[in-house]
Amino acid sequence: MSLSSVFFTPSSVAVVGASNDPTKLTGRPIVYLRAHGYAGKIFPINPRAETIGDLKCYPDAQSLPERPELGLVLVGAGRVIEAVRDLAAAGCKGAIVLASGFAEAGEEGRARQAALREAAAGMPVLGPNTIGLVNLTDSIMLTASGAMEMDEFPRGSIALVSQSGGILGSLLSRAVGRGIGFSKLIATGNEVDLEVSDFLDALADDESSNVVALYLETIRNVTKFRRAAERILAAGKRIVAYKVGRSESGAKSAVSHTGALAGTDGVYDALFAQLGIIRAQTFADLLDIPAALATGRAMAGKRVAIVTSTGGAATIVADNVGLAGLDMPSPDAETSTALLALDLKEAVLDRNPIDVTLAGLRPDLFRSIIGILSSSPTYDGIVVVVGSSSIGQPDVVARPLLESLAATSKPLIAYVSAEAPAIVRHLNRSGIPAYEAPENCASALMAMLPPARVNGSRIPKSPTTVDTSDLTGGALNEAASKALYARFGVPVTREAAAATPREAAEIAASFSGPVVVKILSNEILHKSEVGGVAVGVEPKDVEECCVGMLERVRSLSTARIDGFLIQELVKGGVELILGYNRDPLLGPYVLLGAGGVTTELYQDVALRLLPLDRNEAMGMIDGLKCSALLKGFRGRPLADTGALADTILAFADMVEALDGRLKEAEINPVFVLPQGQGVRAGDGLVVLK
Amino acid sequence: MSLSSVFFTPSSVAVVGASNDPTKLTGRPIVYLRAHGYAGKIFPINPRAETIGDLKCYPDAQSLPERPELGLVLVGAGRVIEAVRDLAAAGCKGAIVLASGFAEAGEEGRARQAALREAAAGMPVLGPNTIGLVNLTDSIMLTASGAMEMDEFPRGSIALVSQSGGILGSLLSRAVGRGIGFSKLIATGNEVDLEVSDFLDALADDESSNVVALYLETIRNVTKFRRAAERILAAGKRIVAYKVGRSESGAKSAVSHTGALAGTDGVYDALFAQLGIIRAQTFADLLDIPAALATGRAMAGKRVAIVTSTGGAATIVADNVGLAGLDMPSPDAETSTALLALDLKEAVLDRNPIDVTLAGLRPDLFRSIIGILSSSPTYDGIVVVVGSSSIGQPDVVARPLLESLAATSKPLIAYVSAEAPAIVRHLNRSGIPAYEAPENCASALMAMLPPARVNGSRIPKSPTTVDTSDLTGGALNEAASKALYARFGVPVTREAAAATPREAAEIAASFSGPVVVKILSNEILHKSEVGGVAVGVEPKDVEECCVGMLERVRSLSTARIDGFLIQELVKGGVELILGYNRDPLLGPYVLLGAGGVTTELYQDVALRLLPLDRNEAMGMIDGLKCSALLKGFRGRPLADTGALADTILAFADMVEALDGRLKEAEINPVFVLPQGQGVRAGDGLVVLK
Repeated sequence: MSLSSVFFTPSSVAVVGASNDPTKLTGRPIVYLRAHGYAGKIFPINPRAETIGDLKCYPDAQSLPERPELGLVLVGAGRVIEAVRDLAAAGCKGAIVLASGFAEAGEEGRARQAALREAAAGMPVLGPNTIGLVNLTDSIMLTASGAMEMDEFPRGSIALVSQSGGILGSLLSRAVGRGIGFSKLIATGNEVDLEVSDFLDALADDESSNVVALYLETIRNVTKFRRAAERILAAGKRIVAYKVGRSESGAKSAVSHTGALAGTDGVYDALFAQLGIIRAQTFADLLDIPAALATGRAMAGKRVAIVTSTGGAATIVADNVGLAGLDMPSPDAETSTALLALDLKEAVLDRNPIDVTLAGLRPDLFRSIIGILSSSPTYDGIVVVVGSSSIGQPDVVARPLLESLAATSKPLIAYVSAEAPAIVRHLNRSGIPAYEAPENCASALMAMLPPARVNGSRIPKSPTTVDTSDLTGGALNEAASKALYARFGVPVTREAAAATPREAAEIAASFSGPVVVKILSNEILHKSEVGGVAVGVEPKDVEECCVGMLERVRSLSTARIDGFLIQELVKGGVELILGYNRDPLLGPYVLLGAGGVTTELYQDVALRLLPLDRNEAMGMIDGLKCSALLKGFRGRPLADTGALADTILAFADMVEALDGRLKEAEINPVFVLPQGQGVRAGDGLVVLK
Repeated sequence: MSLSSVFFTPSSVAVVGASNDPTKLTGRPIVYLRAHGYAGKIFPINPRAETIGDLKCYPDAQSLPERPELGLVLVGAGRVIEAVRDLAAAGCKGAIVLASGFAEAGEEGRARQAALREAAAGMPVLGPNTIGLVNLTDSIMLTASGAMEMDEFPRGSIALVSQSGGILGSLLSRAVGRGIGFSKLIATGNEVDLEVSDFLDALADDESSNVVALYLETIRNVTKFRRAAERILAAGKRIVAYKVGRSESGAKSAVSHTGALAGTDGVYDALFAQLGIIRAQTFADLLDIPAALATGRAMAGKRVAIVTSTGGAATIVADNVGLAGLDMPSPDAETSTALLALDLKEAVLDRNPIDVTLAGLRPDLFRSIIGILSSSPTYDGIVVVVGSSSIGQPDVVARPLLESLAATSKPLIAYVSAEAPAIVRHLNRSGIPAYEAPENCASALMAMLPPARVNGSRIPKSPTTVDTSDLTGGALNEAASKALYARFGVPVTREAAAATPREAAEIAASFSGPVVVKILSNEILHKSEVGGVAVGVEPKDVEECCVGMLERVRSLSTARIDGFLIQELVKGGVELILGYNRDPLLGPYVLLGAGGVTTELYQDVALRLLPLDRNEAMGMIDGLKCSALLKGFRGRPLADTGALADTILAFADMVEALDGRLKEAEINPVFVLPQGQGVRAGDGLVVLK
C-alpha cells in the first residue's frame, strides 16, 4: 500500500484521543474531516467516551470493528507511545502524531522520540511535533489546525512540504489571502520516520500536483532526497525550495527548532543546482514562484514585454526584470505597425515598457494590445502592470487579461501596483499570477525559463578499477600525492624525487631548461613558508640550491625530510585550485576555485556534490567568475577547459574510490594551459585516514 | 516667502480650469480641498462658469479680488502656458501644473515645456506632468488624484518625494493598507522648475517630517541635491531612496518616463553613502525602512532579540537578520534568570530566538518577557514574531506590545507571520513597525543603526596653490604624468628620463641594484603590449636592453618615441589602481580598485564623488574586498593605508584643480608598501583636453 494512498486518501481514519469539546484541539479534527465532506470511515478512540458526536467511540484500536487504515494521534506526548503501539498492533498502515515534546525538547524528548520509533514497529509515522497533513485535492483534513476554519481554500496544483508547521500555517494563510491554491500541504515535524523525501517521492506520482514548494531546515538522508527530487523532475514537475541556515544565527535557530543539524549553505546551493531545484531567495518567492510554475506555462527565452498604463510602476518592474538578467526588446516592426494601427493617443508604443496610457481603461483595446504582443515573435512572456485606477473597476483590467490568457500559451503575469488585494486574488484564481513586489515578478519570470540540463540518471558509475590497496594512512608527500592523482588520470607536472642534492642535479640535467626545486616531506604542508620552494633554477645551480634549501628548512622546521622534488617549470597557464571536502549531511563534494589569494578574498569557488558528470564539471568551470581568464579575456589564449573538465572528473573518481579513507585532498595550483596543451597538477596534498 | 509656506500651506489657492462636474478630474480638487477642511481662500478660475459650487468663479487670475498665493492649474497642455502667464502676472507665488504632454512627450512637448518655463517668469512651478502635492499634516490636498477619496489617511512623520505620480499613488495606497502615515506627499513630475532637491530642502525645516522616502529616477542638479541632503541629515532626519536605473533596461524606461537621463548606478551608491542616504534595495523597503525610522528609535548596536511563540517564523527572521549582519546573542545570565523565574512551561529561554510557546497567548506574561528583554543590556532591539493564533485575537498580541513599547526606548518591531492585514495596520498605527517579509524586517533593523559618519561640512576647500598654467593639452607621457601627480603630492617611483640608451645606462648606474626600463612616449598607452617594459634589469645590461626595446617597439608601432624611463624597482607592495572618471550628471569621482585583472573580474572597486575628505578616503580603502591584503592577510605585513589615503586625497586635489581640463587620469599600479614605507605611483597616465 503506497504512502500516498494511506496518507493522502485513507479509506478510514482512527482518531486517537478524540474529544467531544469542539473548542479543544482534540475536538477539532473529526469536525474538520466531516465538515469538508470526508467520505471514508471515522473511528474515534477514547476510553472515556461512548460517542463522539454521533459516532461510536472505541476504547482502543484493537477494539475497532475493522482494521483502520490511518491513525491520527491527538494525545499528549506522555501517551503517544502507548497509542502508536496500539495502532501498529491493530494493523494500521500509518499514523500521524501531532504532539510536541519530542526531539525538539531536550534529552528527555529525544529518548521519547526513540521510544516512539520503536513502538511504531515499522508502521510509517508522520511527526511528531507536526500540525498534520491537508489534502485539498480531495478535501481530507488530517489536522487540528485552526486554519481549517477559514471560509474558503483555493484548490490548485501546488503541493507544500514543510519542516515547520508554523511555516505551513503562514503560507496557507498568505496563499488564501492571495488566491493561490494548493493540492496537498504536509508538515513533516520532527521526522521520526517519514521525512521530506518520502513525500517528494509520493508527489512525483500525484496527478493533482505539478509544483512542490519546500520549506527546508535540513536533509536527513541525502540519497533519498536526491532520488525523490530526480523523480519529480523526471515527471516534468519542479521543486521550489526555501532553505534556512544561510547565516550562522539562522542555522542555530533551526537547531533549536527541530533538533536538526543544518549544513553549509553553499553546498545546498550546489545540491539544488544539480537537482534542478529552484532556490527561493526570499520567503515571498516560496509562494510567488510556485504560483507562476503552477500555470504550466514556460518562457521559451528571456524576452519580456511590459505593458502599462502608468509610467512609474513599469519603470520599477523593468528595473528589476533587467537586474534579474531578462531582456526587454522594443517591439519589432510588424508588432509596432499593428500597435500603431490601434490609433492610441499619447501611447508610447515604440519602446518597452509599452505605455498604453488611457487605453488601459478600455477593455477591448487593452485586449487587442495584449493579443498583439503575445503573438509577436519578439516576446517570450508578458507582464501587465495593473495601476490604481483598477481598484474601483477590477473587471476593466481583469477581463481583457483573462480573455488574452486563453488566446496564448505564453506566460502572462500581472504586477499590481496599488494595494488591491481583491484584484490580486481574482487574478491568481483565474490563472494569472499576480505580484505585489517587482522583485518577485522578476524571479517568477526567471523561474519559468526551462531548467538547466541536469544529470538525469545518477546511477553510480561502475566501481573504478584503480588499485589503492597499497595505500597506508596519514599524509602523503607531494610526490606520493601526485602519483596517486596520476593513477586516476589527473595529469601532473613531469617530476622526479631525489634523495640527495647530487641526485637532484642529475635529474635536473635530464630536463630541458630551468626547473622547480622543492623540499620533499609529508610533514611539511606549506613548503614555501619554510623556504622549501625554488622556481626557475638552472640545472647547473640545482645542487647548490638543494644544499641551501636543506639548511634553510632544517633551521625552520624539525620535520623529517624525504629528499627533493625536481619538477618541470610550467609557464603560461591559469592557476586554479581543485579540492575535496565533505559536508556532514550531504556528503563529499569537489571544489574548484580561483588560484592564490583570490579564492578567499572573492569567494570565487564552484562546488558540486558527488557523483558528478562531465556536464556538471563544465558547469563548475563556467560558474567561476575567473572563468573569463580561461576564455580569451583581454587577448589571452583560450585555455584547455576540456582537459580541465576531464581532470575534475578524474579527481572526483579518486574521491569516490577513496571515500571513507580520504581526509583531505587538494591540487593547488592546477595549471590550465592553452587549448590542446592540457592541464598540470602543480602541487598536491593527500591526507588519508 | 518660503517654498514650504507657498506649496505646503498656501493662504489661498486659485484653481485654474475648475469645473462643476465632480466626475471630471477638473471637478475634483475643489471638492477635495473643502472635504478635507482647507481653511484658506479658494478662487475658481474658468471663463465659462459663474460659480463653482457655491464659490464665485473668475475669468482669469488678474480679475481676482486679491493676489492668490498658489495656482493649481488643471487645464490641458495646450492652455497651460496662457494660464501660467496669467498667474505670474497676477503676482501668484507659485503654481502646480498637472497636465501631461510636455518633455515626456517628444519634440513638441519639449518645446512646450521650454515655453512654460518662460511663461512662469520666475514664479516657482511644480510639474508639469504631476499628480500634485498632498499635505496630510494640515489636510491640504492639491491634487486631482482619485486616491483622495479613500476613507482614511493615517498621518505620520514620513514625507514622500517622488519623481513619478504613479509611484506616489502606489505607495500611498500601500501605506494606507498597512497603517503607515505620511506628513507630505509630493510628485515632482517633469521638474520644469522645482525639483526633488527643492522639496528636500523645504523638508529639512518641516517639523512634522522626520524621514523622507524618495523615489528617484534622476538628479538634475547634484550640487543642490547634496546641499539639501546635508541639511536633512544635519536636522537629525534621514532620507531613504529607491533609485531606478540599476539595470540598463531600467534606465531606458526611466528615460521614456520623465525625459530624464539616468546616471551610472555605482556612482549613485557612492553619492548616497557620502550623504548618509539609506538606499532601499527593494521597493517594499521604501515604505518599510521609513516606517522604522519614523519611530525616532535607534539601535545603539547590532544585537537583536527575537521573541516568538512559533518556531518556523522565528527561524526565517533569524536567518535574514543574520544574513544582514546583525547579531543574535543568547540571553545573559541575569536575563536568563529573570525569564526562568516566570516559570514558562516548554519555553526555550536560554537561546535566541527566545521561544515562549504558549506564553505568547497570555498578555501579562508576554509583556513581562518583552520587558525583561528590552531592559537587558545584551540587546539593542527586539523583534516580536506574531503568529497565526493572533488573527482571531489581535489584542492578545497587540496590547502587551503596546504596553512594552512605552516602557523602553529601544526599537521594538513585529514580524507578522500570517496574512493578517488588520494586525499589521493596528501595530503600525500604534507606533510598532510591522513587517510581512522577513527580509524587510532585517533591512529595517539595519537602517535603525546610527548613520556612518559622513562629511558634514562640504565647504569646498580653498583652491589649490599648485600652478598648472604651463600644461598644454593632449596625452602626457609617463614621466610627465607622474611629474604632474608629484606636484600635487602623490609619491611616485624614483625615476629619470633618458634620451638615448647610453644616457639610460648612466642613469641606471646611479640607482642601487636592478631597475625598470620603459619606453617613453605619449602616443603609447599600453607600453607592455609593444614590448616597452623590462623589469629587474641590471644597470650593466640597461644599454643593451634599451637598444633591443627600441627596435621591438619600432617594429610594432609608429608612435613618436621620447626616449626611455629608468625607474626604481618596487618590491613587496600591494598593487592597486587609482583613477578618475566623470559621471555626466553627478560629476567627477575617484575610483580605487584591486590591481591587475582582479578589478574587472571581481568588480572590486570603491568610488567616491568629489569633494572628498580623509575619512571618505579611508572608507574607500576599507570598502575594497582586497583590503584584507593591506591588513595582515595570512601573515602579510600591515600596509601603509594612511599614506594611501593621503595619496587618494592628493589625486583628488589634482582632479579638482584640473576639473574641466582633465579627460583621463589613472595611476596603475599604485604600490602600497608596508607601514611606514608609503606608497609609490608605479605608472601613470594623464590626458588633458
